[in-house]
Amino acid sequence: MKKKIAVLPGDGIGQEIMDGALEVLKAVGDWFGHEFEVEKGYIGGAAVDRFGTPLPPETVKLCRDSDAVLLGAVGGPKWEDLPKEQRPEKGLLSIRKEFNLFANLRPIKAFESLLNASPLKREMVEDVDLVIVRELTGGLYFGQPSGRQGKNDEVAVDTLVYERSEIERIVRKAFVLAQKRKKKLTSVDKANVLETSRMWREVVNEVAVEYPDVEVEHMLVDVAAMKLMYQPKQFDVLVTENMFGDILSDEASMITGSLGMLPSASLREDSFGLYEPVHGSAPDIAGKGKANPLAMILSVAMMLRHSFGLKEEAEMIEMGVQEVLNAGYRTGDLWTVGRGTVVGTGAMSQLVVERL
Amino acid sequence: MKKKIAVLPGDGIGQEIMDGALEVLKAVGDWFGHEFEVEKGYIGGAAVDRFGTPLPPETVKLCRDSDAVLLGAVGGPKWEDLPKEQRPEKGLLSIRKEFNLFANLRPIKAFESLLNASPLKREMVEDVDLVIVRELTGGLYFGQPSGRQGKNDEVAVDTLVYERSEIERIVRKAFVLAQKRKKKLTSVDKANVLETSRMWREVVNEVAVEYPDVEVEHMLVDVAAMKLMYQPKQFDVLVTENMFGDILSDEASMITGSLGMLPSASLREDSFGLYEPVHGSAPDIAGKGKANPLAMILSVAMMLRHSFGLKEEAEMIEMGVQEVLNAGYRTGDLWTVGRGTVVGTGAMSQLVVERL
Ligand SMILES: CC(C)[C@H](C(=O)O)[C@@H](O)C(=O)O
Ligand SMILES: CC(C)[C@H](C(=O)O)[C@@H](O)C(=O)O
Repeated sequence: MKKKIAVLPGDGIGQEIMDGALEVLKAVGDWFGHEFEVEKGYIGGAAVDRFGTPLPPETVKLCRDSDAVLLGAVGGPKWEDLPKEQRPEKGLLSIRKEFNLFANLRPIKAFESLLNASPLKREMVEDVDLVIVRELTGGLYFGQPSGRQGKNDEVAVDTLVYERSEIERIVRKAFVLAQKRKKKLTSVDKANVLETSRMWREVVNEVAVEYPDVEVEHMLVDVAAMKLMYQPKQFDVLVTENMFGDILSDEASMITGSLGMLPSASLREDSFGLYEPVHGSAPDIAGKGKANPLAMILSVAMMLRHSFGLKEEAEMIEMGVQEVLNAGYRTGDLWTVGRGTVVGTGAMSQLVVERL
Repeated sequence: MKKKIAVLPGDGIGQEIMDGALEVLKAVGDWFGHEFEVEKGYIGGAAVDRFGTPLPPETVKLCRDSDAVLLGAVGGPKWEDLPKEQRPEKGLLSIRKEFNLFANLRPIKAFESLLNASPLKREMVEDVDLVIVRELTGGLYFGQPSGRQGKNDEVAVDTLVYERSEIERIVRKAFVLAQKRKKKLTSVDKANVLETSRMWREVVNEVAVEYPDVEVEHMLVDVAAMKLMYQPKQFDVLVTENMFGDILSDEASMITGSLGMLPSASLREDSFGLYEPVHGSAPDIAGKGKANPLAMILSVAMMLRHSFGLKEEAEMIEMGVQEVLNAGYRTGDLWTVGRGTVVGTGAMSQLVVERL
């Protein structure tokens, strides 16, 4: 198989973790005889520095000419006071919208050898295996009007808006995913307050008819925020709108205590997708070779599975990561105090490569 | 002191827990020589059944003639399919708005004797002592337009809107509270995406100048959702808008593992306030005498402190609750398996009364 991949390391630790991930990608390609052509581009603060904008046309073109995108992370103190259109995050929001990547998948799975790192008690976390499916191109993030109004601009407004069709397509993605897993779907909304949530609930009930084998439950967002803390095992697939998904997926990322381990995929109807770690650019440790490359490496595995249909290849990476952890290797973030061998970004990536 | 209190038990376990709380109130009044006149009214499903609306004019009048309101809980399956205007929750939203109760205080404090009940590891939870100050009468909950649009109503819209003055008054409340506590204020927003959040942040920075002794930090809502799980001790006072406050306060209520213990106050500029437990109406155990009355009892303590300025009286109740817990008494929800004596709603209330 021959594929072209746009590689956007971005800011902070993005470069370091991407280097490691690309080595893993190359090793898998060599082993299975695939040709992965990678081409680098700029996004976020790095793009602002070079092109004056966080998502330059060059990068859009590169992605358009590619089969998938790998993204490191964006943002950092250097760009924090820039006007809104030049903030690194704007690059991330724009690439999601530009490529219509409406379905953000964030799997959260407990790693047996990392259970100690969780803030939750062991018995709450073992066997946690859930996926948050977050709507990524609608709702409060993109609704208009969004700005100041009134005399002296003393009123600020944002708009939470969804079209029925936008809800339908994300809900359908979630049902299909649930069908391949434990066949349980939790739809999260705030239907006791929001009109958008009432429509969301209607659409879920309508689409549910097409997936009779999937058990559906509706849950209010505040209840979901509680249950993720005290009954995380009860979830299989969660589906929710953009802002709720942002909050709940970050909360959920703490369950296993290993934010540095979590990959994500942003997808649309065809096979094109953008893959990035859930964690940010961690400016405080950038350039020190301390960052955990595993979320980026596992994002590569998600790309192989979701965009290229390479299941075996994806599993090889996932097993490699698992083995390295089982062998006791840890980057600094996985503070399982007094256990294992602490290694840096490069060494960790190399350890995974060796196991392939 | 002579005060009139409107008592709205509401639905589900509301009645049972209110009975217990009123006994405690009476005992404290007798001891200190205060006269608390209580008058009952209807809200939520109970009001729908009797008056056809979840907040009847009779109830509004009763509250208007009172110095404070005690509320049990609203809602239940019986009323779930009613049109939006007749849903029990609508009664709650309407009373908040009608009385301009813009400041919702939700204190979360670890009870030493209940630490086992937390889903979090003991060392994460000990000494947690935070308050969430949630804006309660603005934002997505009340913004217009909120409804369906487009042909065939295929678009749903809600509006997140804040006036500068609405932000100012809630932020000021939070600063004053922080000044009386550990002098640390965390303002939670989503300023990298929302215009309302950018205004929120501006206002916080402006008001901060008046409280130089309070340390202020800004935190994105997704980051706050993470930190509440893995570093809850780092917080003192959190202040945030309505919807974020709803989600984060429910999440935070799980930290100590004792949702049944958490009181809340909804306040405005003067001394009038509404006091209710954070938990809901728990229809599944309603009428069985199993509900935990302590959150309602602690809400009475908050009323004495915030509306009537009766600090000593409030502390007496809080110490009473503490002692009952230390003596090993537990309602069913505080599943500290194999520890303590399980008692029902009435007995638990009685135990607190005995200790006053
Ligand atoms: C950086 C920010 C705009 C972004 C979001 O809110 O979507 C991030 O938090 C995420 O979850 O990917
Ligand atoms: C019942 C519901 C409308 C309410 C809210 O969202 O405010 C509740 O969740 C709360 O937190 O008091």
